[in-house]
Amino acid sequence: MNPIISRIRNLTPAQAIVSYYFLAIGISVGLLNLPGVHQDGVEVKFIDSMFTAVSAVSVTGLSVLNVSETYSTFGIFMLMVILQLGGIGIMSLGTFVWLLVGKKIGLRERQLIMMDHNQHSLSGVVNLIIEIIKILLLIELLGALILTFYFTQFYETFSQAFIHGLFASVSATTNGGFDITGQSMIPYHNDYFVQIINMILIILGAIGFPVLIEIKAFLSGKNKNFRFSLFTKITTATFGLLLLVGTVVILALEMFKSFRDMSWHEALFAAMFHSVSSRSGGLVTMDITEFAQGTNIFISALMFIGASPSSVGGGIRTTTFAIAILFLINFARGKNEIQIFNREIQLIDVFRSYAVIILAIFMVLFATIALSISEPTLPITAIVFEITSAFGTCGMSLGITDELSTFGKILIMVLMFVGRVGLISFLFTIGGRTTKTKFHYPKERVIIG
Amino acid sequence: MNPIISRIRNLTPAQAIVSYYFLAIGISVGLLNLPGVHQDGVEVKFIDSMFTAVSAVSVTGLSVLNVSETYSTFGIFMLMVILQLGGIGIMSLGTFVWLLVGKKIGLRERQLIMMDHNQHSLSGVVNLIIEIIKILLLIELLGALILTFYFTQFYETFSQAFIHGLFASVSATTNGGFDITGQSMIPYHNDYFVQIINMILIILGAIGFPVLIEIKAFLSGKNKNFRFSLFTKITTATFGLLLLVGTVVILALEMFKSFRDMSWHEALFAAMFHSVSSRSGGLVTMDITEFAQGTNIFISALMFIGASPSSVGGGIRTTTFAIAILFLINFARGKNEIQIFNREIQLIDVFRSYAVIILAIFMVLFATIALSISEPTLPITAIVFEITSAFGTCGMSLGITDELSTFGKILIMVLMFVGRVGLISFLFTIGGRTTKTKFHYPKERVIIG
Ligand SMILES: [K+]
Ligand SMILES: [K+]
Repeated sequence: MNPIISRIRNLTPAQAIVSYYFLAIGISVGLLNLPGVHQDGVEVKFIDSMFTAVSAVSVTGLSVLNVSETYSTFGIFMLMVILQLGGIGIMSLGTFVWLLVGKKIGLRERQLIMMDHNQHSLSGVVNLIIEIIKILLLIELLGALILTFYFTQFYETFSQAFIHGLFASVSATTNGGFDITGQSMIPYHNDYFVQIINMILIILGAIGFPVLIEIKAFLSGKNKNFRFSLFTKITTATFGLLLLVGTVVILALEMFKSFRDMSWHEALFAAMFHSVSSRSGGLVTMDITEFAQGTNIFISALMFIGASPSSVGGGIRTTTFAIAILFLINFARGKNEIQIFNREIQLIDVFRSYAVIILAIFMVLFATIALSISEPTLPITAIVFEITSAFGTCGMSLGITDELSTFGKILIMVLMFVGRVGLISFLFTIGGRTTKTKFHYPKERVIIG
Repeated sequence: MNPIISRIRNLTPAQAIVSYYFLAIGISVGLLNLPGVHQDGVEVKFIDSMFTAVSAVSVTGLSVLNVSETYSTFGIFMLMVILQLGGIGIMSLGTFVWLLVGKKIGLRERQLIMMDHNQHSLSGVVNLIIEIIKILLLIELLGALILTFYFTQFYETFSQAFIHGLFASVSATTNGGFDITGQSMIPYHNDYFVQIINMILIILGAIGFPVLIEIKAFLSGKNKNFRFSLFTKITTATFGLLLLVGTVVILALEMFKSFRDMSWHEALFAAMFHSVSSRSGGLVTMDITEFAQGTNIFISALMFIGASPSSVGGGIRTTTFAIAILFLINFARGKNEIQIFNREIQLIDVFRSYAVIILAIFMVLFATIALSISEPTLPITAIVFEITSAFGTCGMSLGITDELSTFGKILIMVLMFVGRVGLISFLFTIGGRTTKTKFHYPKERVIIG
């Protein structure tokens, strides 16, 4: 066998994911340095096109440069290709891992869906992934068409409207969060139609592909015995709750501050849009530096939690957060088992959530200290916001991205990468595989807290 | 039986601890409002004497007023009584809980020590606690004498030197962190002798009483079979490592900044003293607002971790931190058991550490958002520093304590109380006792991170 193929076959899923992203970043840097990518007379430093590539592949959307003033139409098209590379990569790899986990533990819905598609072989898996890519492209195209026709009222030519509509749809669905208006969604702060379309596209991207697959299987109605998996129930419930809590808290904190001159529906939409956006979308409809510091710390916490696993979003993921909360509630009640939706959470998943949270907190803390030393003039709230935004692959910023030093840019790139790959994959890639302990020491209690 | 005594006997240990502190705070508020406590013409608002009482009982040391300008010599004596009430309370309750846990799980060293003191009855436990109080008072007296004789060179009369020496010793040993110079330890920033005495006293208070008891048992040499408990090994190792890492990082971050005009030994002592102080002492030898923001965030993290369980310090405690780190390392290596010092950590202790960390992070995050909304003019680094200082019952401050609104003061009081009682006790007091689940749901896996 070809030694390279043999090596690829020996990769663990985690190593495969990390390798894919490294490769994708390499290709993206190449694409962003093709001739004709930049507008006439614009020069971009290597570190900055590297940053744009990492940001686009990880579908984060943080940007050290103004996209609308830097890239030509061809360049914007390339950026869209890279967003697809990131988005589809996540989707395929996410689905692949989901199927793998399903195979190992005999997930009932997976089996049903597999049967549904007659997919017991590798080619079956490939077919399923192709079908999912079709779903994504369909969503993007639908969004693009709706936005294009709507945008024809703002632009002189249809092709201009189409470019903006297509880019907006791709950017929202992949949760890329880049904008070619130069002002994110601020020009549409009174346009609820555009906002609603964007929120729907963002949610479809961030809710997780297993959820989309199960909803499709449910809607098809072919399997009488179909039930939603525990994963889908937990992640959807958590996602919904985070959106609700996010909207209510942002509204409460800003009602008499940055929202004070708004009508009730303007304020509601502003709160709702930024709550949705904090899951992973990264678009804004107003200048968020106007928010109170407390609001921006709250949004940082939301971005740190991030979106569903196997979605275009990052962070510690909804399920990690949900299990931590469920664990805490059960522990305070003196229960040893976590029961939810008539199912019991397994111990290994409690352990995983613990590991992910501890590691994520260390990373954010370390990055905060490092950045506050390397960028002494930047306010700490903006630094924490930037860091959690990168780790959550969200892309909102308090406007400091282009002021970062080279060290700061590299640090944010690493955080976007880790946020994208996911800490569990990262942990296993560093730490290797599970090993069995050969002998046991006697156990002994320790006083905690 | 007297119904009140019967009620007290039915308290869980956690409820007993919470009740003790409530009672102690009540008594302390009374003591601080006795006639003659204040200097002539000084009026103190109720919320402020309440704050001082909570700060002294929890041996935190945060202060909304200038102790040296507010309290008379009698008042300072009362403050010392309250620090003892807090310090001895912690010591006795800590030892009691330690013995209780030891009884339940048959801790070998506990049995040896109990045999050593012929203490198989309640009166035996009381005797042991009395002996520990003797140890504490001995340490304080020794410290007081050394400092008094040393201070005679600075003060005109012996009694002045004695008052300052005694207060300094009590404040350091109980980790109270109050000062009657009005400038903490800044006047002694070049006096390494006073600093070393203070550091030793702080460490003796913060290392945990079980550790002191075991060292005493070890030194007595009566038991040939004596070995240190896993708890003592873990907490001492973690304590030492935190001191070391704290010193090195503070030195590295400030070497070319606030330490740039210092000689190497001045810089080393400054780094060392604030590292020791961040465990729980709360004294400072320089104006710490001169530290870089990154350094103060790092110190916040150290204060959040805090000191040993069953010590005069607070925070999540060294053992909680140690188990989290050990868990993470083992998890990354793919091991399911945590092995350290030839012993295995029990699952319940891993769970406890998880619960404590999650709850503590929520508290700090909630408090940060709340304070940044209620005190919009204060910088966020100072707010986070104040919050972690209160939760870690450390008492260092970036100087905002007396600028807090009434809401802010109440919030900081709650944090000092929770930090003192410990989150595990807090959790069980709210959540009640352990209950057994009657039936099990099927288990199902969830995708994490
Ligand atoms: K994003
Ligand atoms: K203290």
